[in-house]
Amino acid sequence: MFVLFAEEMRAVSEVAQGAKPASLLLEGGRIVNLFTRRIEEGSLALLGSRIAGVGAGYSEGSEVIDLEGGLIIPGLIDAHIHIESTLLLPSHFAAAVLPHGTTAVIADPHEIANVLGEAGIDFMLSISEKLPLDFYFMVPSCVPATEMETAGGEITPVQVERLLDHPRMLGLGEMMNFPGVVHGDKAVEAKIAAAHRRAKPVDGHSPGLAGRELQAYAGAGISTDHECITAAEALEKIGCGMKVIIREGSAARNLADLLPAVKAAGSRHFMFGSDDREAAELLSAGHMDEILRRAVALGCDPMDAVEMATLNPALHYRLARRGAVAPGYLADLVVIDNLQDFNVRLVIKGGSVVAREGEALSPSASHPVDENITNTVRLLRPLQAADFSLKAGPGAIPVMGIIPNQIITEKLMLEPRRDKEGAVQADPDRDIIKIAVVERHRCSGRVALGLVKGLGLCRGAVASSVAHDSHNIIVAGVEETAMAAAVNALARSGGGFVAVDGSAEVQSLLPLPVAGLISREPARKVAAALAEVNAAAQSLGAAPHQPFLTLSFLALPVIPHLKITDHGLFDVDTFSFI
Amino acid sequence: MFVLFAEEMRAVSEVAQGAKPASLLLEGGRIVNLFTRRIEEGSLALLGSRIAGVGAGYSEGSEVIDLEGGLIIPGLIDAHIHIESTLLLPSHFAAAVLPHGTTAVIADPHEIANVLGEAGIDFMLSISEKLPLDFYFMVPSCVPATEMETAGGEITPVQVERLLDHPRMLGLGEMMNFPGVVHGDKAVEAKIAAAHRRAKPVDGHSPGLAGRELQAYAGAGISTDHECITAAEALEKIGCGMKVIIREGSAARNLADLLPAVKAAGSRHFMFGSDDREAAELLSAGHMDEILRRAVALGCDPMDAVEMATLNPALHYRLARRGAVAPGYLADLVVIDNLQDFNVRLVIKGGSVVAREGEALSPSASHPVDENITNTVRLLRPLQAADFSLKAGPGAIPVMGIIPNQIITEKLMLEPRRDKEGAVQADPDRDIIKIAVVERHRCSGRVALGLVKGLGLCRGAVASSVAHDSHNIIVAGVEETAMAAAVNALARSGGGFVAVDGSAEVQSLLPLPVAGLISREPARKVAAALAEVNAAAQSLGAAPHQPFLTLSFLALPVIPHLKITDHGLFDVDTFSFI
Repeated sequence: MFVLFAEEMRAVSEVAQGAKPASLLLEGGRIVNLFTRRIEEGSLALLGSRIAGVGAGYSEGSEVIDLEGGLIIPGLIDAHIHIESTLLLPSHFAAAVLPHGTTAVIADPHEIANVLGEAGIDFMLSISEKLPLDFYFMVPSCVPATEMETAGGEITPVQVERLLDHPRMLGLGEMMNFPGVVHGDKAVEAKIAAAHRRAKPVDGHSPGLAGRELQAYAGAGISTDHECITAAEALEKIGCGMKVIIREGSAARNLADLLPAVKAAGSRHFMFGSDDREAAELLSAGHMDEILRRAVALGCDPMDAVEMATLNPALHYRLARRGAVAPGYLADLVVIDNLQDFNVRLVIKGGSVVAREGEALSPSASHPVDENITNTVRLLRPLQAADFSLKAGPGAIPVMGIIPNQIITEKLMLEPRRDKEGAVQADPDRDIIKIAVVERHRCSGRVALGLVKGLGLCRGAVASSVAHDSHNIIVAGVEETAMAAAVNALARSGGGFVAVDGSAEVQSLLPLPVAGLISREPARKVAAALAEVNAAAQSLGAAPHQPFLTLSFLALPVIPHLKITDHGLFDVDTFSFI
Repeated sequence: MFVLFAEEMRAVSEVAQGAKPASLLLEGGRIVNLFTRRIEEGSLALLGSRIAGVGAGYSEGSEVIDLEGGLIIPGLIDAHIHIESTLLLPSHFAAAVLPHGTTAVIADPHEIANVLGEAGIDFMLSISEKLPLDFYFMVPSCVPATEMETAGGEITPVQVERLLDHPRMLGLGEMMNFPGVVHGDKAVEAKIAAAHRRAKPVDGHSPGLAGRELQAYAGAGISTDHECITAAEALEKIGCGMKVIIREGSAARNLADLLPAVKAAGSRHFMFGSDDREAAELLSAGHMDEILRRAVALGCDPMDAVEMATLNPALHYRLARRGAVAPGYLADLVVIDNLQDFNVRLVIKGGSVVAREGEALSPSASHPVDENITNTVRLLRPLQAADFSLKAGPGAIPVMGIIPNQIITEKLMLEPRRDKEGAVQADPDRDIIKIAVVERHRCSGRVALGLVKGLGLCRGAVASSVAHDSHNIIVAGVEETAMAAAVNALARSGGGFVAVDGSAEVQSLLPLPVAGLISREPARKVAAALAEVNAAAQSLGAAPHQPFLTLSFLALPVIPHLKITDHGLFDVDTFSFI
C-alpha cells in the first residue's frame, strides 16, 4: 500500500517547512480543497511522489511549472471497471486514459478469470506493474459465474484467500451470486469472510434488490452496488450502509437517474465507475473527465462531482493518503481549465508529468505475453458446416428474440424454416438465423445450437470469443459454412471478433489473442479495428449498433429470458435447459 | 476486530429475510439513519450482537421491547479520552457512562504508561476486557513526555510495534512531540512509520500549529487534532486532511468555539472527545450525551451531532460495521427521548440491554490488581521537614505564579521571606508557599524545591501523586512538617490526593493506589472522596476551584512559563533549569 517510511517522512518535512526546495513546484494555479470545499490560491511543493506543502509560502523548486490559472484537482479514480471490456492491455489502457486525468482504477478481472482462472488474475497483476497509472484489483468472486456453462477457470475460496493478500487486491469483487449470499452457500460465505478478516471491502452487484433481501445482502457486509438505476433504489441501498457506484459506461448510463440521490443523501456515499467502456469512447469522449463534465452539466455540485471521482473511492477502498490535494498525499494531480468543462491540461502521476494537453508523454510499451495466456481458444478440431446442422421435431421451437439496446432477450416460439430432410435452416427473410456456442476452453468438442431473431444478418456469419461470462465462442450466421469459417478463424487468431461473408471469406477480424478477450494493440488501432469489424458485420446486414456487444451477451444465462450456453438453450425463467 | 464469520452471517441472514425470529425485536421506536439522514419508522430485528434487519417487516422476536416512540441512535463513542483522568478503573468507568449511552471509548493510556511503561498499558488492556463497554486504545507515543523529568516508564519504538499489533490498539496516540515530527527525531519517525505500516491512524496534539509547520506535521500522516480552540484553526487543520476531535472535557471546553467550523466544512471531518472528564461530572452532567445536548442547544444540526459521536469515530478508527443503525452492524444502540434533550432511556450493548433509565443493569465488578500496579510510590525513605528546607542567595528569586483557571503560570521574581539563618520560608500572608516535586518512581531520593504564589494555602499542605506527565509527587505547603507528612501519607496509600493541616495531621485523603493515579472504588465514592479532599484543601485556604487539578499541572514542563520537575525549577521560555 502507500506507506511513508521514515527517511521519506523527514525529506518531505524539510520541503514542507521551506528548508529545502521542492522537486517540482506548481505555481500560478488554484487548488481544489475537497476537505474544506474551497478553492485556494497558492503553490504546491512536491517532493518525489509526495505532496509536501500546499499554500502561499512555497516558491522554490528544482523544477517549476506555471499553471497559468489552472485548477488543481486530485488524480481521478475509476471505482469500478473491467479492463477487459476495453479490449486493451493495461499499458495501452493507461496511455488512453492518462491524458484524461485518470491516475488509478479499481478493476475487477472477472472476464479473464473466467478464461484462465488464477493465472489470468496473476497475469493482470504482473502486466499492470510499474505503469504510470495505478491498477488496483478486486478478487473476482463468481468464477465460474454459473453452473450452466463451461468456463476456462475457477476461483475457489482458497484462491480468494491467497489473492486477497496481494497489496494491490483491495477486496472481493462484485458478488453477483445473491442467492448464494442470502441462502448461505458455503463457498460464497468463505469468500466474503476472507475479505472481512482482512478488513477489505466486498463489492456488490444487486440490480433491483430491495426490502428484506437487501437487508440480508447488505448485512453480510457487502458494501457497494453499481447496478442502481433509480434514485430510490440508490437511497434504499445507502440507507443500509452501502456505497453506490454511479455507473456511466458505454452502454449502461445511470448518472442522470442517480444524481437526485446524491443531492438527497450527500455525495460521501457515492463514487463513479465506468464498468464497461470502449476504447473508441475513451479516446474521443474521455473517461472519468467525461463523467465529471456530464455530472456538472446535469446540475451536480462540482465539489461533489470531483469528490466522487477521487476522495470517496480512496476512502472506501482504503487507498491511504490519496484522492485529495493535501500534505503527505500522493502527488497524483490533474490540472484542468475549470470545474465545468474539465478540460485536462496536465496530468501528474506520483510527482511526474505524464500527460499534457491530451497526449501521454511516454508511448505505451509492449509487453511480452506468455503462450498460456494467448493460447486459449482450444477446439477439439476445426469446425465444419455439419457441426451447425440442427434437427428439431415438427412445430414451433424456441427462438431467442433480440430486443434492441437491451441485454435481455425474448423467448419466442416460432415455426422454423426446414429443408427437405426436415433440418432446421436459417431464414434471413424473417430475420431468423442460426446461433451456436462452441466450447473453447477444454477441447470438449461441444457445440450448442439454436435460432436467433433480430440480429439482421442476411448472409455470412459473425463470431466472438468474448461471450459473457464464460467466454466460449459464440457464432451466428446464415450459412453453416460461414459459421464454421468464422469459428475456425477465431481459433487461428486466438480469439477476437470476426465477420465472414456468405462464401465463407473473412471480411474483417479483430484479433484478441490475450485470453481471447484483449488485443495487443494500442487504443487507436483497437478502436479502428473494432469500427471496421462492426462495419463489416453491418455490411452483412447486422442490425445492432454494436453487433459484437449484442452477440457477447446472448450467452449470459443469468439475464432473462432465453439464452444459449455450450450446454444448449437455457430458459432463464424456469432456470432450466430446453 | 469485528469480523462476520460464516455461521453468524448465515444466521443473521435468516433473521434478515424473516425466515427466523429475532433474538431481540425492538418495536414501536423510530430509527435515526445517519446514511440517509432521515428518521425512519420501523422495527429493528437483532440476532445476538448484530443488527439483522431494519424496517417495517419485522415482527417476531424471542424477546420484544416496545420502545414507546423512543428514537434509536447508535451507541455513543468517545473519540479521545484518558481514562486515568476520571480516577476510575475501566469497570467503574463503564458503569458510570453506560447509562449515558456510551458503548465504546478510544482511550490513550498515556498517564499510566508514564508510571508503569508497557506494564501499565498491558494492565489497562487486560482489566478492560469483557466489559459491557468496548475499550479501544491508542499506543502512547510520548513516554516519557520530556527529558526534563523522571518518569516511571518508557515506551520505545520496539514496544510501540508490539502494542500496535493488539486488536484493540487502534493506532498511535497523540503525538505531542511536534519538534520530533518535523525535525526528524528517529524514534518519533519509527513510531509513526510503525502505525502507517499497519494502516492504523496516528493521533495528533498540536495546539496552535499553523502554516508550514502544520503542513509538515499533517504531511507526516498525523490525522487528528483535539487541541483546536478556534474555528479558523480547525478549518486550517481540516484543509490539511486532518480530522478534528472537538474536545469537551471538565476543564477544556471547545465545543462552542468549534461548531462554526462544523457548519463551514461539514460534519464528516469532526468527532467528539472528552479528553479529561471527572467522575462527578460523568455521573451528574453525563458524558457524550451531555456533549450532544450542548451541541444541539448551541445550534448544531442533530444529525451532525449524532454522527460526530458515532459513525465518524467508527470510520476514522476503522471500527468496522459500527456507529450506525444498519443491517450487519454491531447492535450497540441507545434509545433516547428526542434529538434535543438526549435523555437516555435504554442502552443496548452487543444486543443486550445494559442500562435502563439512567441505571446500569449489572453492578460494576471489582478486579484483583497486581502488586506491581499498586506499589508505585517508591521513596528512598520517609520524608522529613528538613527535606523541604530551601537555601537561596540574597535578592529576588523566581516564583511560580498561578493564573486562575489556566495551566500556564507566570514567572515572578520576588524577594522571599527568610528566617534568621537566611533560609527561605513560606509567606502565606503574601500567598507565597513552598512547592516541591518528590521523585517517586526510582527511589532516587530526589526532591526539587521552589516557591509558588496563588495557591491560597494559609496552613498545612496538599500533595498529589497525579502530576503531569511523569506523575512524581507534587506537594505544596506552609509548614515543612506538614509537607513531609503529606508526602509520607501518599507513600503509605500508594498515591492519591491528600490535605494535611498545620499540625501535620491528615485531614482528608483520596487513595489512588492503582499506579498512584486511579482509585479502586466506584464512581460515586470517588466523586464524593474527591469533593471531600478538595473541600479539605479549601478549608486550609486553597484558592482554586479544583486545587488538586491545579497542582497536577504545575509539574508539566512543556507548558509556559515556569514549572517544577524533580530536577528543579524549569524555565519553559528558555527551555532550561534555573
